[in-house]
Amino acid sequence: MQVQAEDFFFSGLHLRGNTSNPAGSRVTPVFATQLPGLNTLGISMVRIDYAPWGLNPPHTHPRATEILTVIEGTLQVGFVTSNPDNRFITKVLQKGDVFVFPVGLVHFQRNVGNGYAVAIAALSSQNPGAITIANAVFGANPPIPGDILAKAFQVDKSVVDMLQAKF
Amino acid sequence: MQVQAEDFFFSGLHLRGNTSNPAGSRVTPVFATQLPGLNTLGISMVRIDYAPWGLNPPHTHPRATEILTVIEGTLQVGFVTSNPDNRFITKVLQKGDVFVFPVGLVHFQRNVGNGYAVAIAALSSQNPGAITIANAVFGANPPIPGDILAKAFQVDKSVVDMLQAKF
Amino acid sequence: MQVQAEDFFFSGLHLRGNTSNPAGSRVTPVFATQLPGLNTLGISMVRIDYAPWGLNPPHTHPRATEILTVIEGTLQVGFVTSNPDNRFITKVLQKGDVFVFPVGLVHFQRNVGNGYAVAIAALSSQNPGAITIANAVFGANPPIPGDILAKAFQVDKSVVDMLQAKF
Amino acid sequence: MQVQAEDFFFSGLHLRGNTSNPAGSRVTPVFATQLPGLNTLGISMVRIDYAPWGLNPPHTHPRATEILTVIEGTLQVGFVTSNPDNRFITKVLQKGDVFVFPVGLVHFQRNVGNGYAVAIAALSSQNPGAITIANAVFGANPPIPGDILAKAFQVDKSVVDMLQAKF
Amino acid sequence: MQVQAEDFFFSGLHLRGNTSNPAGSRVTPVFATQLPGLNTLGISMVRIDYAPWGLNPPHTHPRATEILTVIEGTLQVGFVTSNPDNRFITKVLQKGDVFVFPVGLVHFQRNVGNGYAVAIAALSSQNPGAITIANAVFGANPPIPGDILAKAFQVDKSVVDMLQAKF
Amino acid sequence: MQVQAEDFFFSGLHLRGNTSNPAGSRVTPVFATQLPGLNTLGISMVRIDYAPWGLNPPHTHPRATEILTVIEGTLQVGFVTSNPDNRFITKVLQKGDVFVFPVGLVHFQRNVGNGYAVAIAALSSQNPGAITIANAVFGANPPIPGDILAKAFQVDKSVVDMLQAKF
Repeated sequence: MQVQAEDFFFSGLHLRGNTSNPAGSRVTPVFATQLPGLNTLGISMVRIDYAPWGLNPPHTHPRATEILTVIEGTLQVGFVTSNPDNRFITKVLQKGDVFVFPVGLVHFQRNVGNGYAVAIAALSSQNPGAITIANAVFGANPPIPGDILAKAFQVDKSVVDMLQAKF
Repeated sequence: MQVQAEDFFFSGLHLRGNTSNPAGSRVTPVFATQLPGLNTLGISMVRIDYAPWGLNPPHTHPRATEILTVIEGTLQVGFVTSNPDNRFITKVLQKGDVFVFPVGLVHFQRNVGNGYAVAIAALSSQNPGAITIANAVFGANPPIPGDILAKAFQVDKSVVDMLQAKF
Repeated sequence: MQVQAEDFFFSGLHLRGNTSNPAGSRVTPVFATQLPGLNTLGISMVRIDYAPWGLNPPHTHPRATEILTVIEGTLQVGFVTSNPDNRFITKVLQKGDVFVFPVGLVHFQRNVGNGYAVAIAALSSQNPGAITIANAVFGANPPIPGDILAKAFQVDKSVVDMLQAKF
Repeated sequence: MQVQAEDFFFSGLHLRGNTSNPAGSRVTPVFATQLPGLNTLGISMVRIDYAPWGLNPPHTHPRATEILTVIEGTLQVGFVTSNPDNRFITKVLQKGDVFVFPVGLVHFQRNVGNGYAVAIAALSSQNPGAITIANAVFGANPPIPGDILAKAFQVDKSVVDMLQAKF
Repeated sequence: MQVQAEDFFFSGLHLRGNTSNPAGSRVTPVFATQLPGLNTLGISMVRIDYAPWGLNPPHTHPRATEILTVIEGTLQVGFVTSNPDNRFITKVLQKGDVFVFPVGLVHFQRNVGNGYAVAIAALSSQNPGAITIANAVFGANPPIPGDILAKAFQVDKSVVDMLQAKF
Repeated sequence: MQVQAEDFFFSGLHLRGNTSNPAGSRVTPVFATQLPGLNTLGISMVRIDYAPWGLNPPHTHPRATEILTVIEGTLQVGFVTSNPDNRFITKVLQKGDVFVFPVGLVHFQRNVGNGYAVAIAALSSQNPGAITIANAVFGANPPIPGDILAKAFQVDKSVVDMLQAKF
């Protein structure tokens, strides 16, 4: 098989992602699906756009560590360590700041400015996966039984019903 | 350094773990901390006890796949796949059934019987870590700002306040 | 390809394996062949049954460490370290005891009680392999030349002939 | 050891690197040395600045694949495949284009515009290393014997002497 | 720490190893212990000498595949596959022939000529380990209980006693 | 698929490689292409022949560490460390000496005697790749633009033209 430049190339990370959604953020992935030359090489990249006060909500990557740098705007970022500490590690990042989210930990970024914000992040897998916590827990398809979630979150099932209705 | 049998040995998985807690479950770990001979060998084990209708609530292991077998009782188990599908994969397990929870995915087990239940599970790391979703999200220390969680879960901040008060 | 619960599920580890054989033991494997969802995940599980005084004879796993816990009965377990020490590390395990057999080392378990014994073990590969020493050495097909084994074990070839006749 | 946000944080990638050097380029690294939280996590990041027509000269990373995106300007990038093909794979990248340089292959980037150019790249190691070909070959310390290089590059030793004098 | 040529260098593989022992063979190792520069690099080397009709007896490497080439003489080599097949794969090698022994499998080499034989082999670990089957099984220290070995090899305990006396 | 001895066997490393070429050296590879049994096992082997004063010119292996032993003759070997030190580590090897070239670093061997020399080397990959620096830089196909190389090597483009004409 002839090696071709096109297999190692992806175009489009200069474009602002559409942030017209409830979270006010958008991730544009460059994984092996989008860039075949990444196959077996253990790395990938994303652009993340944030509307003013937009949020890339709490999520994990099951198969990758993430390293992120701010290109534009100001972001509050954070991750939470494992049981039993569940320590919340957080920082406000300015343009040019870099932050690491270790593999599998729950993390988020939020635009804490009135303009748009942009980040470039790299991930240590060609196919890192992403699990948005709220969607996985309250928006699974079919739904996780409500009484399980009521017990897990120590609330009435009516609160769970309300949450599940949103996802 | 002399190799000693004690370094490869751990005693205690025959004991029922104390399930007198809100979730009604208890995990007894045998990680490298408890069993030094596991160092560098990439595997570990746990016993999980469940009170009647007890729940090992939705959680992830950031660095391990889990394989579980039921020793006693009946368990409903499930995991949720990554974005964008968030498919809920579930099964009711009887004694002697085996189930796999792939690395990093949100999963749980619930005792669906009126007696105690017990499972033995193995994990593909000497130090797999565990992140209980509800605790990491609503019980982080210090807390994740409430407005971030309100936006992530699409609820009023008062709901988040209520949830954070429980963890 | 649609993810299906059946691919992550195996049934049957509650069943006592048939130990009516010369060794008096039986291994019931749950490898990727039996449980396709294990593919690429680096872990698997077995149930081991032992008749009274039954033996899981000296063997190695060429691609996995094993962690074992006793479910029923009393087992003497052991492994031998590499050259030049060949140290024999052994322990008598009761129900609930856990023991580790590091990757590639010769190990065994023997029921040292008058009742049946049962263990659950996990292995750090989806396809760990198993090499029963006596079978690999004296029961290979075609046979290893007898004079090689006579020299290796420092015995007359007639002893090797007798041993090869048994496997 | 207490986890601290500072260990996962690095500041300064917004600053234009000093490109007042013969190559007209500057790499600002964010490796585990600069960002301790990267330890064991298998990823790192760099900013690369290019003066007009500046060159990040042919080099390899002995332990990492690189994924690069253009933040500002226009870059010609390229890599050369292994023996025996030595195929030159090249592409002109605009702002927002992404390119992959597979582990260990000789690659370069050149600013092909009259303004400054900037790229952000990630590498699949916490300590990827970098070998600038001209420096390793003609600028080693102590020098590689000149007759070896004369034979390798099929030139008179006087040409090698001239080249070695420059590094 | 200054990098030094001595750390990457080992001298002595030209010397014939002393084969005046019952097996008539000698392995001279170049592992990380002998050559510190191998640390973390996942490879090592050995020289193997064989007296006429000498045997490198059946053994395994718990953490490495081996690739061997004959430098002098004629060797019969072989390995046995895992359960349940226990297939014996064998070949007579002349000078310049190469053979592979996959990780963890039982293998041997025998000089089938009347002169000395020499092989150079490489192993896919800086510390591959070696388990000589006869020594691990019949020469462990302290000994494996004789009744276990009698059952494993399906012989009278007196045969085991005789075998254990030799190692 | 039946396991066959032929898949684990390669013949021909006793033959002197043809060194009638400008460098005066020849590498005979035994990679997975030549020896299918190496597949997934992470190791391979080569024979290297050197005419009197022949050179295996500066090159890298993008995916493997190399361990080499001298079978015949006297070799000067060397490698250069990464930026910024570019330290040249060198040693003259006699028959039976062993040397390590860490993954991805520029290295060479030169016969410093008036007779032929021979080395056997092993590499920590089934498909290590090789990049001869002069060929990759000055002999790429299509060529790397001459002005890029002129800048990288700090010479007139006419020198680059001359070098490119030779490869």
